[in-house]
Amino acid sequence: MYNMTIRLQQNSDKCLYEQIYEHIRHEIWEGKLLAGERLPSTRSLAGDLQVARSTVDYAYEQLLSEGYIEAKPCKGYFVCPMEELLQLEPDVVEKDDTQDSQQGMTLAKETVSVPDYNFAPHGIDMSAFPFSVWRRIHKTILNNGNEELWARGDAQGDYDLRVTISRYLHSSRGVNCAPEQIVVGAGNDYLLMLLEKILGRHVGIAMENPTYMRTWRIFRSFAYNVITVPMDESGMMVTALDKTEARVAYVMPSHQFPTGTVMPIGRRTELLRWANKDENRYLIEDDYDSEFRYRGKPIPSLQSLDENGKVIYIGTFSKAIAPAIRISYMVLPQPLLEVYRRDCYFYSCTVSRIDQGVLNEFIRDGYFERHLNKMRKLYRTKHDLLLQELVPFAKKFNVSGEHGGLHLLLTAKGNVSERELVDKAEAVGVRVYRLSDSCVEEIPHRRATVLLGFGALAEQEIQEGIQKLKEAWL
Amino acid sequence: MYNMTIRLQQNSDKCLYEQIYEHIRHEIWEGKLLAGERLPSTRSLAGDLQVARSTVDYAYEQLLSEGYIEAKPCKGYFVCPMEELLQLEPDVVEKDDTQDSQQGMTLAKETVSVPDYNFAPHGIDMSAFPFSVWRRIHKTILNNGNEELWARGDAQGDYDLRVTISRYLHSSRGVNCAPEQIVVGAGNDYLLMLLEKILGRHVGIAMENPTYMRTWRIFRSFAYNVITVPMDESGMMVTALDKTEARVAYVMPSHQFPTGTVMPIGRRTELLRWANKDENRYLIEDDYDSEFRYRGKPIPSLQSLDENGKVIYIGTFSKAIAPAIRISYMVLPQPLLEVYRRDCYFYSCTVSRIDQGVLNEFIRDGYFERHLNKMRKLYRTKHDLLLQELVPFAKKFNVSGEHGGLHLLLTAKGNVSERELVDKAEAVGVRVYRLSDSCVEEIPHRRATVLLGFGALAEQEIQEGIQKLKEAWL
Repeated sequence: MYNMTIRLQQNSDKCLYEQIYEHIRHEIWEGKLLAGERLPSTRSLAGDLQVARSTVDYAYEQLLSEGYIEAKPCKGYFVCPMEELLQLEPDVVEKDDTQDSQQGMTLAKETVSVPDYNFAPHGIDMSAFPFSVWRRIHKTILNNGNEELWARGDAQGDYDLRVTISRYLHSSRGVNCAPEQIVVGAGNDYLLMLLEKILGRHVGIAMENPTYMRTWRIFRSFAYNVITVPMDESGMMVTALDKTEARVAYVMPSHQFPTGTVMPIGRRTELLRWANKDENRYLIEDDYDSEFRYRGKPIPSLQSLDENGKVIYIGTFSKAIAPAIRISYMVLPQPLLEVYRRDCYFYSCTVSRIDQGVLNEFIRDGYFERHLNKMRKLYRTKHDLLLQELVPFAKKFNVSGEHGGLHLLLTAKGNVSERELVDKAEAVGVRVYRLSDSCVEEIPHRRATVLLGFGALAEQEIQEGIQKLKEAWL
Repeated sequence: MYNMTIRLQQNSDKCLYEQIYEHIRHEIWEGKLLAGERLPSTRSLAGDLQVARSTVDYAYEQLLSEGYIEAKPCKGYFVCPMEELLQLEPDVVEKDDTQDSQQGMTLAKETVSVPDYNFAPHGIDMSAFPFSVWRRIHKTILNNGNEELWARGDAQGDYDLRVTISRYLHSSRGVNCAPEQIVVGAGNDYLLMLLEKILGRHVGIAMENPTYMRTWRIFRSFAYNVITVPMDESGMMVTALDKTEARVAYVMPSHQFPTGTVMPIGRRTELLRWANKDENRYLIEDDYDSEFRYRGKPIPSLQSLDENGKVIYIGTFSKAIAPAIRISYMVLPQPLLEVYRRDCYFYSCTVSRIDQGVLNEFIRDGYFERHLNKMRKLYRTKHDLLLQELVPFAKKFNVSGEHGGLHLLLTAKGNVSERELVDKAEAVGVRVYRLSDSCVEEIPHRRATVLLGFGALAEQEIQEGIQKLKEAWL
């Protein structure tokens, strides 16, 4: 039998049983203790090592539970067969693991040159956010929150929050829905993943060109057949849509990204009519920034016109509150709600219940409405300022996409490429964005167009940035 | 030309332009104003109605932007073609919408009878959670949090948090990974959805039987071919796995749910060997409750034995902190990390950055470790108490799955059905859970087995509950 000599360190940070356990495990790994070999009895080993028998018992326990050794009744402890262990040859070794992980590092930490003036279309202004209110609600909820708050919540999101959202949607967007139709999730991307499970696989889905490329990529990552449909000044051309295999159409009727088109009522009804032709057809209405209209009342949602449960309405709080608030929601029409309940009930909600609670109070107690009004004013001021600053560009550019959202479009009248415009701007420390970045496929004979987002910039920055663009472009 | 008579209410809560806008819109909907019809000029209408011209301008603006009317230069305003609108016949009407939504209501609010003693296998104890600490960290983060905190974060999760998690995983679970390999997400369900995109479609995936049914349902909801592989006392039988089409195997080596099996080192290496045979083979290690071992040290993770990037390690904070904390993480091996970076970079992170920040400090500053130690003691006490209370059952039942996790299994020696056991228990106000609820397909000739979870119950409740079970079963 194997004679075990273990040098135990009394003043090691590892307790004795651990040292014994690790020694034996090491011997097994090293092949010094071979499969089938018998270990000394706990009593004898305890004697040899001058330790309490329970210490050895404990070490053996651990080796047993990890499967290094086995106990045979009335026979003792034996080393388990380990040949697999030793045969573990690296068949498929990652060639240069460290280097890859280095690349990973750089990739993750990569920093792109930061422009002085970044007209990012998705930038928003957090300066006016009522942090104090948000904090206070947070605090009260954490203080008063019963244990229930920490338990797994409703898969669709807490009922109270859904009631609040449905009320808000009804009053502000004309959306008609019961709280039961609402599914709360951590961001649109997640909700679309869920929608994939509801709508099923191999769905033909129509998108406008240009469109919101993030969503396009997500649909592409599904087993979807993504069909791009041309758009005119009213949005997606239903005549073209009709000729496709699509059974779902994704649109942003209140404010199409990137063109800023507001879909007229006529086109909306055309779309609904298209959807009504087949019971498997649906419309996804992405109402991402409808809160921000600077003329008249907000455009009522497409869902508010829907009488036959054809519209899947998706909204987010990322724009109106903060991108870090990962809370979006979708309103499922009755038929799809039933599919969700049947096939997706086991996906637990992705939003922490604390955040749900905070948002619920924030909306219910009117802070959201007040915040929106403040932001609308704030963005309108920036919007109007930008428009005014762009007047001198009128000779060489057309402005479009105004009166809503957080960006404008500038289309060159002359022959210039978007690349040129962007490079010239970059040269003077201004970043603008090419329309072609939002094009699934290039649109023939279209003029160079760039996007100017004003959400995140201060008024002075807008003025200075445009001043620089003047120098660069005019 | 259409002669417009509008009764304006001066003391209405609707402002004048709104009343004009709504009147005209109504007339169009009603078909009283027909397509192509010309509207009065803003000047004349303003005169007729005795309102400022700007008020009418405003109303027309709104009708324009919603596409009810169009402006023809030098001609005036005309009603847009509306025939689609009027032809909007409900082709596919939801038969009994309200009733459905009623069902929805009941479905959502449905309450099942609450037992006096619920031995739920997934119940956890929140009583010892350091709420005050959590709140304090929350508060400081909300107070000191710069705007950056409110911006969209890294898709994989904040780098600092990933560093903290990788350190924790290394020290506590022997997991070897760089922060770059970690993807943070709102719950395991979401991470699995992401994994579907990484591993691709139509994957043959092997699961043990019995297994964690939530995960099974999720894999089923993917375009996966879910293959159940029998298990012996060491876990998934690799000999059986070898005969399947599976290229991915999902296992819980530290503590299999529901059997509580700890996979011995020999079987682990067998599994790794199976994975190493083909470069497209992977193992998913779900380490859902490995924190809770009551004998010896925690079992090292399967990932810690993996030398060839074969193990996808998934962990969650739902068990160790709270189900409401929707934060899980997965460690991707290098090859899959590259696929993720290529195909999934556009899925934004589903966890709010505030929560990420709180969790980061909670772990980094040692609170998590302290909390775990406290919980381990607390659960061990319950575990030992339950074991001791079950001694009288020895004649009629075998106990298994002890020394770890938050539940035990009780297997009847005699001929009794699980249904009987559950019903008898239910009759005395005790809820226990059938093993068959965790079986994908029934296992022939197996004895009736029930799960007893002790996590959420107080010691006294355990004693009283078991006392009642004695009356019911013995």
